[in-house]
Amino acid sequence: MTDTEQNLGPIGRLVRELSRLPGIGPKSAERLTFHLLGGDRQPARDLAQALKDVSEAVHSCPECGNLADGEMCSVCSNPRRDPAVLCVVETPRDLAVFERAGFFRGRYHVLGGRLAPLDNMGPDRLSTDSLLRRVQRGGVTEVILATSPTLEGDGTALYVSNLLAPTGVKITRLARGLPSGTSLDLVNAQMLSDAVEGRRVF
Amino acid sequence: MTDTEQNLGPIGRLVRELSRLPGIGPKSAERLTFHLLGGDRQPARDLAQALKDVSEAVHSCPECGNLADGEMCSVCSNPRRDPAVLCVVETPRDLAVFERAGFFRGRYHVLGGRLAPLDNMGPDRLSTDSLLRRVQRGGVTEVILATSPTLEGDGTALYVSNLLAPTGVKITRLARGLPSGTSLDLVNAQMLSDAVEGRRVF
Repeated sequence: MTDTEQNLGPIGRLVRELSRLPGIGPKSAERLTFHLLGGDRQPARDLAQALKDVSEAVHSCPECGNLADGEMCSVCSNPRRDPAVLCVVETPRDLAVFERAGFFRGRYHVLGGRLAPLDNMGPDRLSTDSLLRRVQRGGVTEVILATSPTLEGDGTALYVSNLLAPTGVKITRLARGLPSGTSLDLVNAQMLSDAVEGRRVF
Repeated sequence: MTDTEQNLGPIGRLVRELSRLPGIGPKSAERLTFHLLGGDRQPARDLAQALKDVSEAVHSCPECGNLADGEMCSVCSNPRRDPAVLCVVETPRDLAVFERAGFFRGRYHVLGGRLAPLDNMGPDRLSTDSLLRRVQRGGVTEVILATSPTLEGDGTALYVSNLLAPTGVKITRLARGLPSGTSLDLVNAQMLSDAVEGRRVF
């Protein structure tokens, strides 16, 4: 503990740690701190324990790169998940979005990010080697590229697609189009152009 | 740990604990969790430690009710703070607002809330007994009522003022008026009415 930390005191240190979280500024951090100090201390202790457990128990799945608290993640260790279809996502969070939607029965591969040269994210920082090995090992019939629908996501998909092309596996990309549930006047030009380009026979 | 908790797993438990915080919904809690699990685990460990320290070290100051990590709070243990002026606030958070503003040199008394019969906050849940004892003990020349500028805050101020009246101490209330820095067209009717009622000779 440095001198500054001692001067800050336990309340100030909690405010500082909370304000380091994304989307939580100094004011929110202070509000949360006073909430946690109001009355019962059990919520603060429970949160501390949950954080400790997570930082000790959770690691990367050696197979797919998802977060795992056992040897393998919950998807890879589930024998009912189809190993023939691999959905390639950027982050464990994107994988969680798929899992919450609940319709996908295949398996995943988590790249660990997307290519972003300006943020120093080069190909060496993505888990493409292990993806290639999984495909080369056989049994995979389709790889669905589910990187984000942005320039960087598209670039990453193109890179992965080129890398996998020699294996001859079927490579697909998530459809672009209108987001279900909106009205057309809320849709921007890019979405509309995607929707026209990807139009299907009715 | 209950069965449900075991089923939830460490990640789910952290999401649950975070989503119990005010202003953090399930989506934000999930985003924070994935942030804390992205790469280095040190931020999660630091936050856990800060929470643990706070829940062990921080208690109510026996003199004023402020949060304290020593025997007394930082204000009560500071001999340079004027004991003749007591500023009565609702919560430690309100006290922190005063302290951050930095101009007040007196001491505080934290009521622990405001009268709100509908929320089951009666006079018995406010620390008015210890306030009365502090004033009766002597040495206090002015009590500034700094409860919030709302109906409930005003009711609380009136209650405290009636309670302290027999002691003969000077009782004041924070001014109501225009908030500095706004323009008049952003001010509501109540603020304007307060400002006219409290107008002063120029």
